[in-house]
Amino acid sequence: MTTSENKPYLRIATEEAFATKEQLALFKRVLDQPNVDKGFAHLMGFYMSSPSERAQHIMRCLVDLDELRIAHMDASGIDIQVLALTSPGAQIMDRETAVSFIPNANDELAEAIKRHPTRFAGMVALAPQDPAASAKELQRCADLYGMRSAVINSHTQGEYLSDKKFWPIFEAAEALNMPIYLHPNSLPAQMIDPFIEAGLDGAIYGFGVETGLHALRIITSGVFDQFPNLKMVLGHMGEALPFWAYRLDYMHNATVRSKRYEAIQPTKRKPSEYLKENFYITNSGVAWGPALQFTQAFMGTDRVLYAMDYPYQYLPEEVDMLEQVDMTPEVKRQFFQDNAVKVFDLKI
Amino acid sequence: MTTSENKPYLRIATEEAFATKEQLALFKRVLDQPNVDKGFAHLMGFYMSSPSERAQHIMRCLVDLDELRIAHMDASGIDIQVLALTSPGAQIMDRETAVSFIPNANDELAEAIKRHPTRFAGMVALAPQDPAASAKELQRCADLYGMRSAVINSHTQGEYLSDKKFWPIFEAAEALNMPIYLHPNSLPAQMIDPFIEAGLDGAIYGFGVETGLHALRIITSGVFDQFPNLKMVLGHMGEALPFWAYRLDYMHNATVRSKRYEAIQPTKRKPSEYLKENFYITNSGVAWGPALQFTQAFMGTDRVLYAMDYPYQYLPEEVDMLEQVDMTPEVKRQFFQDNAVKVFDLKI
Repeated sequence: MTTSENKPYLRIATEEAFATKEQLALFKRVLDQPNVDKGFAHLMGFYMSSPSERAQHIMRCLVDLDELRIAHMDASGIDIQVLALTSPGAQIMDRETAVSFIPNANDELAEAIKRHPTRFAGMVALAPQDPAASAKELQRCADLYGMRSAVINSHTQGEYLSDKKFWPIFEAAEALNMPIYLHPNSLPAQMIDPFIEAGLDGAIYGFGVETGLHALRIITSGVFDQFPNLKMVLGHMGEALPFWAYRLDYMHNATVRSKRYEAIQPTKRKPSEYLKENFYITNSGVAWGPALQFTQAFMGTDRVLYAMDYPYQYLPEEVDMLEQVDMTPEVKRQFFQDNAVKVFDLKI
Repeated sequence: MTTSENKPYLRIATEEAFATKEQLALFKRVLDQPNVDKGFAHLMGFYMSSPSERAQHIMRCLVDLDELRIAHMDASGIDIQVLALTSPGAQIMDRETAVSFIPNANDELAEAIKRHPTRFAGMVALAPQDPAASAKELQRCADLYGMRSAVINSHTQGEYLSDKKFWPIFEAAEALNMPIYLHPNSLPAQMIDPFIEAGLDGAIYGFGVETGLHALRIITSGVFDQFPNLKMVLGHMGEALPFWAYRLDYMHNATVRSKRYEAIQPTKRKPSEYLKENFYITNSGVAWGPALQFTQAFMGTDRVLYAMDYPYQYLPEEVDMLEQVDMTPEVKRQFFQDNAVKVFDLKI
């Protein structure tokens, strides 16, 4: 690492978005359809067409996997970005389009890593619309490119990974020991209205609660009883689930006992135990000491990783802000470097 | 207080539910209608008909404002309950029924307080369906009974208090210096499906995120710029909003700048500042030291209050669990007694 010579550890950012030109062209095609999904139209439709400074910045940065991005990394003290195809990846596309597009996106990612092997690593993008194809794509990218993790952008057109039809993806991820980063998506039509009418469907609140819901659905559906070695990653300080842990455990137990829902059956462990034993958490979007320290105390310092959420959140001073948080040098090294190396199996 | 003789402070629980027989009869009438609201049917419909021990316990306790309740308070070390008509109060009823029912409920509450003046206090129940009638009911209960606070159970049939048509309620509450407790409701039809199909619409998760959404809608709509002295109370450790504070501020600012939503306009202060200056937070349902201490550090120890959430959460050992949390005697006294006395203007 060229920028690491005077540092005790590398700063590795682990939830950093990019887009390919093909992806944006396919997004454009979706946006031009009648009855386009409201959340997608309002999110990517906005970024792809707004003249606002924020939207223009995001679009410019998303497609750059060379000079501009690396200049921003240098300006903010980031040594390595772990890249993920920007949300919703291929999950808004029809199944056939998604399955044929995904390998191209992963090939482009592999090319970028090859051009800048000391600066970039990446997660495999998937088309959960086809679980069998997703399992194969995990294997292909592991074999061909040595990729060691994957990203799924929450729900796929209103469907959740708690549905057993998706479990071949978990089966493959567990077998290949590839963690899955559960990244936010725009809210599904089935729940967006009370959020979007108030402008709260996005990163300010809606993303967090919908991705938290998804993680809880995975936990309570028994995924980790079936796949005990499956690892998942949650961004945005665990989408606040660590803060909810006591209530999740108490009410899960109460709900199981009341037999109120077919969907809530006994699990081997408490929800909080799956959180602590099957998940890793990044602080993407939350550069704030109190929430970071709470999460480290809950999860253990070996399970909380740094992420910036570039380019949606690009604050050149963010690394310095986090360096000021009261952590021992050992914990800082875990947070900025060691945990990322372990979770994403990086060769540094 | 008979139970306080050997204690340095009273234990006051501030989000404790009761029901009147008339309310349950009106609920039954709503439940018998075709096309009844899904969330209400699944929540009160379940409690009012299930043979499960949990449901039977809840129904038995809700309607008791005498011996059983006081025995449970004694068994759990609670000196005073601040009572609130159980969710959704009158908010599921048609406007005419709600407006005619509400004074009866408040009269019954006043009677119970008169029977047990050292053990009960209470919040005024409202029918937000009629904002003008709600403002009058606040005044009536303040004048007639000396009641000093009110409760609203989140959305009213899918409508939120961020809508200016409801603001006469805030105007009256501010003028009378009566805090409004924003209590959860079952999820509105517009967002319940992804939660209820997984059994996560209730207290385990759905209540929290919907009430948090409501509080954010109130904050971002400018209510506190219009009514700067309005006080509100949030339960369940602030519905996790303190944990989200950094992201709320960052993304609110980004959203204002991007001009992405008509609904998100500049406000005088940051979302987190309204949280800290216009809200009080109770720990209802969260008897857990780490989340309590985080919230006290964020809000100040003078803004975090004890609540049990009886009878939905009835854990006789809960007060003792919280007495074990590392707090100074002064902070324990604030948490269990002084803050409740101040917020609910109790005469102890």
